[in-house]
Amino acid sequence: MTTTSRSTRARLDALLRQGNEAMSPRMLRRVLQELRAIIDPRISEVEGGRRAMAMAAWYAGATPERRYDLWLLMSEMFVADQKKAAEAQARFAAALGTPDEAAAEVHYRRSTVSPRRRLLQRFSVYPGGVQFLVEMRAELQPHLRADRRLLALDVEMEYMFSTWFDVGFLDLQRITWDSPASLIEKLIRYEAVHEVKSWADMKNRLDSDRRCYGFFHPRLPGIPLIFVEVALVDEIATNVVPLLDESAAAVDITKATTAIFYSISNTQAGLRGVSFGDSLIKNVVDTLKLEFPQLRHFATLSPIPGFRSWLARQPEAQAELAGLDQPLQLAPKSPQRRFLMRSAARYLGTQFQEGKPLDPVARFHLGNGARVERLNWGGDPSSKGLKQSYGVMVNYLYDLKRLDRHRSQLAQGRIPMSGEIEGWLKE
Amino acid sequence: MTTTSRSTRARLDALLRQGNEAMSPRMLRRVLQELRAIIDPRISEVEGGRRAMAMAAWYAGATPERRYDLWLLMSEMFVADQKKAAEAQARFAAALGTPDEAAAEVHYRRSTVSPRRRLLQRFSVYPGGVQFLVEMRAELQPHLRADRRLLALDVEMEYMFSTWFDVGFLDLQRITWDSPASLIEKLIRYEAVHEVKSWADMKNRLDSDRRCYGFFHPRLPGIPLIFVEVALVDEIATNVVPLLDESAAAVDITKATTAIFYSISNTQAGLRGVSFGDSLIKNVVDTLKLEFPQLRHFATLSPIPGFRSWLARQPEAQAELAGLDQPLQLAPKSPQRRFLMRSAARYLGTQFQEGKPLDPVARFHLGNGARVERLNWGGDPSSKGLKQSYGVMVNYLYDLKRLDRHRSQLAQGRIPMSGEIEGWLKE
Amino acid sequence: MTTTSRSTRARLDALLRQGNEAMSPRMLRRVLQELRAIIDPRISEVEGGRRAMAMAAWYAGATPERRYDLWLLMSEMFVADQKKAAEAQARFAAALGTPDEAAAEVHYRRSTVSPRRRLLQRFSVYPGGVQFLVEMRAELQPHLRADRRLLALDVEMEYMFSTWFDVGFLDLQRITWDSPASLIEKLIRYEAVHEVKSWADMKNRLDSDRRCYGFFHPRLPGIPLIFVEVALVDEIATNVVPLLDESAAAVDITKATTAIFYSISNTQAGLRGVSFGDSLIKNVVDTLKLEFPQLRHFATLSPIPGFRSWLARQPEAQAELAGLDQPLQLAPKSPQRRFLMRSAARYLGTQFQEGKPLDPVARFHLGNGARVERLNWGGDPSSKGLKQSYGVMVNYLYDLKRLDRHRSQLAQGRIPMSGEIEGWLKE
Amino acid sequence: MTTTSRSTRARLDALLRQGNEAMSPRMLRRVLQELRAIIDPRISEVEGGRRAMAMAAWYAGATPERRYDLWLLMSEMFVADQKKAAEAQARFAAALGTPDEAAAEVHYRRSTVSPRRRLLQRFSVYPGGVQFLVEMRAELQPHLRADRRLLALDVEMEYMFSTWFDVGFLDLQRITWDSPASLIEKLIRYEAVHEVKSWADMKNRLDSDRRCYGFFHPRLPGIPLIFVEVALVDEIATNVVPLLDESAAAVDITKATTAIFYSISNTQAGLRGVSFGDSLIKNVVDTLKLEFPQLRHFATLSPIPGFRSWLARQPEAQAELAGLDQPLQLAPKSPQRRFLMRSAARYLGTQFQEGKPLDPVARFHLGNGARVERLNWGGDPSSKGLKQSYGVMVNYLYDLKRLDRHRSQLAQGRIPMSGEIEGWLKE
Repeated sequence: MTTTSRSTRARLDALLRQGNEAMSPRMLRRVLQELRAIIDPRISEVEGGRRAMAMAAWYAGATPERRYDLWLLMSEMFVADQKKAAEAQARFAAALGTPDEAAAEVHYRRSTVSPRRRLLQRFSVYPGGVQFLVEMRAELQPHLRADRRLLALDVEMEYMFSTWFDVGFLDLQRITWDSPASLIEKLIRYEAVHEVKSWADMKNRLDSDRRCYGFFHPRLPGIPLIFVEVALVDEIATNVVPLLDESAAAVDITKATTAIFYSISNTQAGLRGVSFGDSLIKNVVDTLKLEFPQLRHFATLSPIPGFRSWLARQPEAQAELAGLDQPLQLAPKSPQRRFLMRSAARYLGTQFQEGKPLDPVARFHLGNGARVERLNWGGDPSSKGLKQSYGVMVNYLYDLKRLDRHRSQLAQGRIPMSGEIEGWLKE
Repeated sequence: MTTTSRSTRARLDALLRQGNEAMSPRMLRRVLQELRAIIDPRISEVEGGRRAMAMAAWYAGATPERRYDLWLLMSEMFVADQKKAAEAQARFAAALGTPDEAAAEVHYRRSTVSPRRRLLQRFSVYPGGVQFLVEMRAELQPHLRADRRLLALDVEMEYMFSTWFDVGFLDLQRITWDSPASLIEKLIRYEAVHEVKSWADMKNRLDSDRRCYGFFHPRLPGIPLIFVEVALVDEIATNVVPLLDESAAAVDITKATTAIFYSISNTQAGLRGVSFGDSLIKNVVDTLKLEFPQLRHFATLSPIPGFRSWLARQPEAQAELAGLDQPLQLAPKSPQRRFLMRSAARYLGTQFQEGKPLDPVARFHLGNGARVERLNWGGDPSSKGLKQSYGVMVNYLYDLKRLDRHRSQLAQGRIPMSGEIEGWLKE
Repeated sequence: MTTTSRSTRARLDALLRQGNEAMSPRMLRRVLQELRAIIDPRISEVEGGRRAMAMAAWYAGATPERRYDLWLLMSEMFVADQKKAAEAQARFAAALGTPDEAAAEVHYRRSTVSPRRRLLQRFSVYPGGVQFLVEMRAELQPHLRADRRLLALDVEMEYMFSTWFDVGFLDLQRITWDSPASLIEKLIRYEAVHEVKSWADMKNRLDSDRRCYGFFHPRLPGIPLIFVEVALVDEIATNVVPLLDESAAAVDITKATTAIFYSISNTQAGLRGVSFGDSLIKNVVDTLKLEFPQLRHFATLSPIPGFRSWLARQPEAQAELAGLDQPLQLAPKSPQRRFLMRSAARYLGTQFQEGKPLDPVARFHLGNGARVERLNWGGDPSSKGLKQSYGVMVNYLYDLKRLDRHRSQLAQGRIPMSGEIEGWLKE
Repeated sequence: MTTTSRSTRARLDALLRQGNEAMSPRMLRRVLQELRAIIDPRISEVEGGRRAMAMAAWYAGATPERRYDLWLLMSEMFVADQKKAAEAQARFAAALGTPDEAAAEVHYRRSTVSPRRRLLQRFSVYPGGVQFLVEMRAELQPHLRADRRLLALDVEMEYMFSTWFDVGFLDLQRITWDSPASLIEKLIRYEAVHEVKSWADMKNRLDSDRRCYGFFHPRLPGIPLIFVEVALVDEIATNVVPLLDESAAAVDITKATTAIFYSISNTQAGLRGVSFGDSLIKNVVDTLKLEFPQLRHFATLSPIPGFRSWLARQPEAQAELAGLDQPLQLAPKSPQRRFLMRSAARYLGTQFQEGKPLDPVARFHLGNGARVERLNWGGDPSSKGLKQSYGVMVNYLYDLKRLDRHRSQLAQGRIPMSGEIEGWLKE
C-alpha cells in the first residue's frame, strides 16, 4: 500500500466523519464511486461525458450542503499519485542531456496530470458542461477563504478555464441595439461600473456615437464574458453625466477623434483569474481604428473605487476633511478640494499592494500599459461616485506606442503618469 | 549557476556546433532570442501573439533546413527548470494531508509547466496561429523517428492540441452538395479509403440517400478534421461497388433500416494522437437516429488494409495460395477462397500488437466498442482492394447497447465478434 | 394637341393657381420636371432609381405642405393617356377570336399602365425606396377622405404594394426573447390589442409557453408587417388576465392541446388594403402543428371593440342598463349581465355593414373562415376592455376542416357560430 | 349572354374539337374547372395557393401534349371581360377632370386585370410556385412562334415576372470558391460565353484576381439569375486566352487599375424579357469601386457572335476573303486582316436592326451606355471564336460619367465609339 493510497483513505475517512447534515457516509461513498466512474479508463470519452452530465443533473437538484460535499470529494479524492510523480521527476532529471530525455519528459508530464483534471475534462464533453463548471466555480468561490481544502479544485478549474478560454478562442463581437434582447438584458444585469437604470438607458449606450464590444466563447453561447462601453467624442471626456444622459443628441462620429472607454465589466465570477480585459481593449482599439481611421486618442473615464476608504485610513485626512459635507460644492481653489485632488494623485500614483497598484481599476489599466492621465473633479456626482471617491474620476490613457514601455516601468515599481498628475504629486 | 542553466548552455553549444548548412550560429542566437522574446513576461499576451505571428511569417519563407533548426530550438531550449520542479514536488509531497497541501499543489503545478508550453500558447493567440502549429507538426512528424531531440516538442504540441481540440469544442456539421466547393474539394483530396475519382463521384456520395458529417474546430475554419461517409440502406451492405456507382438511383430513405459507415478519413497529420473518431461516430449515430427514428443497424463496410501483407508472412500461406492469380474468380467453395476467408477471420479475430488489434482499421472500430460482424468476399474488387486484402471487406457492427461491454471484453484480450466470424475461426 | 394633354395642362394650371403657402409655381414646375425625369425613357432603370432617391431625400426635408403638393403632382400629373387606351381597347375588342388577339391584348395591356405606376416602380429600385413609399402612403392616408384628388395615387400604391407584398414574398419568422432588441421594441410600440406595459411584460409574452410570429419582407428588413401572439394552453382561454400575468409560471407545453391567438397587430398603416392576416394565421397554424403534433384546437381570445358603442345606439339599451356602474360586479344570473351577453351575441352574430360583419375584429376572423365560439364575461377587466365591451371577450374558433365552409356560409349572409352563441340568440 | 361569354364558349369548343392525342374533352373540361377553382373568389388566397400547388404536381407528371393543352387553357380561357373593360374605360374617360375621376380610374384599373393574372398570382403563393412558373415559361417559349394563341399567357407571365423580379428585389451576391458546390455546378452549366471545361477551369475563374457576381431572388433560392465574371488587371485585356489559363499566376490585385467583364450569362430562359444585365453591371461596378478604390477603367472583353454570318451576307466579302483558310495566321498588315478589322468596325459601329444595334452583345452593352472601344485580332482563337467572328473580340468601355450621354446618342441612331473604331471606319 502506497503513501498516496493511505492518504486517500485517510481523506475519505475525514470526509465521512464530518457528520454535518449533508451527505450520509453511504451517499458520500456512492457519489465518489460515480465520480470515479466518469473517468473509468475502460469507457469512452463520450460515455464519460454522459456520466458527467448525469452528475450535473444531480447537482442541479442538490442542496447547498450536498453541493459542498461534492466539491470536497472532487478536491480531496482526485489528487495525483505523488510517489509516481516523484519517481518520474527523478527519472526525467537523470535523463537530461541524454537521448532518453524527451521520452522521460513525456512520462513525467503525464505523471503530473491529476485525475481531477481528467474529471473536469469529461465535464467539458457534453454541451452545457463548460457552463456548468463555470457556474459551479462561481458558487464555490465565497467558501475558499474559509476552507482551504477547496483550493485544489478551484486552482484546477482556473487552470482548465485558462486553457479553454484562451484569448485565441474568444470571439470579439460588437453589440448593438439589433443584438438579441436576451443579450441586452445580460448587459443591463452585469454592468458593474455605472448601473443601467432602464432599457432606454441601455439603448442610449448603444446609440450611433457609441460602440459596445464583448468577448464570447463558443461553449457559452449568448453570454458576454466581458464587455466594454465606448463613447466616440472629440476630446477626452471628463464627466460621465453627459455620457449617460439619454436625452443628449448623438455626436457626429465622422468628426470623433477620441474613444472613451467608460465602462468595462466582467460577467462571470467563475472565470476569476482568467484575464480577458487586456486583450479586449487591444482588440477593440484595433477594430475602432479600422472603422474610424481618424481616431487619435484612446482613454478611459474610470471610477476610483478604493480612494475614499483608503483616504479614511490616512491619519492626516481626519483633520483636513473635518466638516466636509457636500464635497461637490467645494470651490475650485478651496483647500479641501485641492487636498482631495492631491490625495487622489497620491493614491493612484504611488500606492502599491503586493507589487501592484492598490486601486483595482488602476491595477487593471496600468497592467495593460496605460498611464494615469487626468483627474476629474465631480466626474461622477452620483451617490456611488461620492461614496467611492468623493465624485472624482480619472482618465487612463492608452498610448499605443508606449504600452510596453509603460508595463516595463510599472514592473520596476514606477507608475506611469502624465505631467498633470506629476504636478499634483509635487504640490 | 544551476544544473539546468548549465545544461541549457550545453544544449545551445551542441546546436551551434552542428555545422550543417542551415542557420549560422549568429542566426541561431538571434532566432533563439526572438523565441524568448515571445514569452517575455514583461509584455502582454497580445504583444506576445504579435511576435509569434512574426515568427510564423519568417517560417513561411524559410528553407526546410532552417525550419528544422527552429524545431530544435523550440524543443531543446525551452525545458522546464528541473531543480525548481523537484523542489516543488518535494514540498508538495511533504504537505500532503496538511492545511498547506492545496497551496503546495498549486505551486507544484506551476513549476511543471515548461516555457515551451507558454511558447506554443502564444502562437494560439493570433488568428491562424493554431493552424500554423498543426501544419508545423505535420511537417515535423516524419523526422521524429530519426531525431529523438524533436520528441519533446512533438509531445508538447500533442498535449496542447488535445486540450484545444477537446471533443467538446468540435462542431459536428453535415456536409452536403450545398456545402462550399472549397470544402468539397478538401473531401476529395483527403478521402483516404476509397479514392474520389471526380466531382461527379463526390456528388454521388452526397446524394439524397447518403449522409456525410465532419468535425470542425473554430480555429481551423472550413477544414474538416475528420469526416465519415454514410449510406442509408435496407440491409447491411456487403459490397462497396454499388455504393460508389454514380449511375445507381438513390434509395428511398424513408424505408432505410441500416446506416453503413463506408469511409472515415482523418485529414490532419498534425493532429496525430488526438482522437476524434469515436466521438464522431457516436455523434453521427445520435444525429441519424434523430432524423431517421426507424434506423435499426449501424455498421461499417471497411477495408482490411493489413491482411494481405500479414498473410504473406504466415508460413502456411505460401503453399495454400500457390498459383493464385485471379482471386476474384475463385468459386465459392474452392479451397483457396475458404482459406482466404478463414485467414481473414483469424487476422481480425485473433491478432494483437502491443495489446491492441493488429489491423489499424480494426483497432479503431473495436476500440470504439464495435464487433467484427461479417466478412464479404469480393467486397472491394478494385486494385487497391485486391492489394490490401484480396478484395475481402469486413463489416464492424456498432451495437449501441453493447459498446462498453465490447470495450471491456477487448481490454481483457478477447476480440468481440459475431457467430459467423466464430464459425470461420472454428472451421 | 390631344384631349389628354389639354387635360394635363389644365391640371397643372389648377395646381399652380392653388395659391397656398406650399410650393411656388416655379417650384411646382421644377419638381414636376424632376418627377418626369425619373421616368425619362432615355435613362436606365438604375439612373431612374438614383433620381427617385434624390427626390426622397428632398421629401425628407420638406414641410408637410410641400409634401402634400408632391402627392398632388404624383396623383394628378401622371395619368395614362386615355385616348390611346381607348384605341387599344377597341382594337383588342375587335381582335377577339382572331389570330391577332394576343398581340392586341399585349398592346392594350401596355396602354393601361399609367406613368404613375412607372414612377412608383422607380422608387422601388434603390434600397430603402419601398419603405419610403410605404411611409409616404401612411402619411397621405388621413387626407384621402377630404381630398379625392389623392385617391388615384393611393390606389396606385395599394396596387403596387399588393404585388410587392404578395404573400409568397413574405417570410414567416418566429420572434423570441433572443430576437433583436430593436425588433422587440417595435412589438412593444405596435402592439394594438393589449398594451405592452414594460420590457418585462413583453418578455412574459415570449416565455416558453408562448409563441410569437411575424411576417417580414426583404425590402423592409427588421420590421414585422403583422405579428400574432399565441399562448399554448390546455383549454380554450376565457380570460386575458392570466395570459398577461408576468408572475405566472410557464405552462408545460408538452401537454398543451390548444393554441390561443390572443393578439394580432398590423404595424404599417401604409399597407392598408394589403391583407396578410389570413395567411399569417394559416401559416402559424401549420408551423405550430409541426412543432406540437398534439395540438387540437386553434382559437382566439379577442376583444369586441365596437360592442359598447353599438349598444349605446340601440334604443332598448338605455332602459336595460340604467344605473349600471360596475359591470364586472354583476352576479352571473343578474338581468343586466344576461342582457349584455345576449346583446354581445346579437352584435357579433347578426350585425352586418356593407355585407360584412360590423365588428372589425369579427370581420377579420370570420373572413378567414373562423366561427364565433364563446363569450367570456369579464375576459378583459382593464379600463380599455370595459370601455370597448363592458369587459366581455370572445373566442373565435379556427376549425381547420371547416374554414372554407364557413366562408361560403358568411358569403351567403349567415355568420357561423357555435351552439352556445345560438343559445344566447334564442334566449 | 355577352359577347365575351359567347367568345369564351367558342374558345372552349375550339379546344375541344382539336382532336389531338392530348387531353380528352372530358379531361379538358375537368382541368379547366380545376383552374377556375384556383381563383374561386369564395376561397382564401392560401387555399387557392394549395390548389395551384396540386395543379403543379399534376403538371410535373403530365405528357408534353397535355402540358401544351394546359397552356392553351390558361391562355385562352382566362381573358378579361372586354365589355366590362370598355364600359369602365368610357366611364373613366368621361370622369376626367371631374371629382369622380380617381374613383373611375380605380374601377377602370380593376376591370383591366385579367383572370389569368389572378391565376398566375395564386401560383406565387406556395413555396416553389414562382420557380414552377419560370420553368413552365421556359418550356413554352419555343412554341410561341408557331402558335400565337400562347402569346397572351407568355406576355402575362412576362408582366408578372417583371414585377416579381423587379431589380429592387434582387440580391447581388459575390460568388467564390467558398460558395456552395451546387451553385458552382450551376455556373459551369449556364456559362454561355466561354464554355467551362472542368471544375479546375471554374476555380481559376474564381481566383484571387477575379470576381464573380450574380443576382439572386428570394423565391428562386440558390439559382443565379444572371452572373458576370470579372478579371482585375492592369490594362484593358485584349485576349481571352490568358484569362482562361488555369496555370497562370494570379495578378497582384492591389495594383489592378482595370476591371474586365469577360463573361455575362443569363441562366433562366423563362425570364426572357425581364432584364437584369444593366443593373447587374452597375451594381458590380459600385461594389468593385468600394473594394478597390484605385480602379480606373471598367470594360468588357466580348465576343462578336453575329459578325461572321453577317459578313457572309455582304456581297464584297466573297471576293475579299477568297482563299482565306487560317485567319489567325494573317500578317498584321495583310489586306485580308485589315478588311476583316474594317468590316468588324462597320458591323459594330453602323449596323442596326429595328432601331437597335444588330449584334446581340453590342445591343446589350450599348443599351447600357457603353461604347465600342477596341477591336482585338485573335482575341478568341477557339473554334467557337473563329466560327463567330474569325477570332476577333471587342472591348466595350463603361465610362461611368458618360453612360447616359451614350444612351441618348444611341437613341438618336449614332453608335458611341472610340477614336480607334472611328479610324477603322474611315479607312
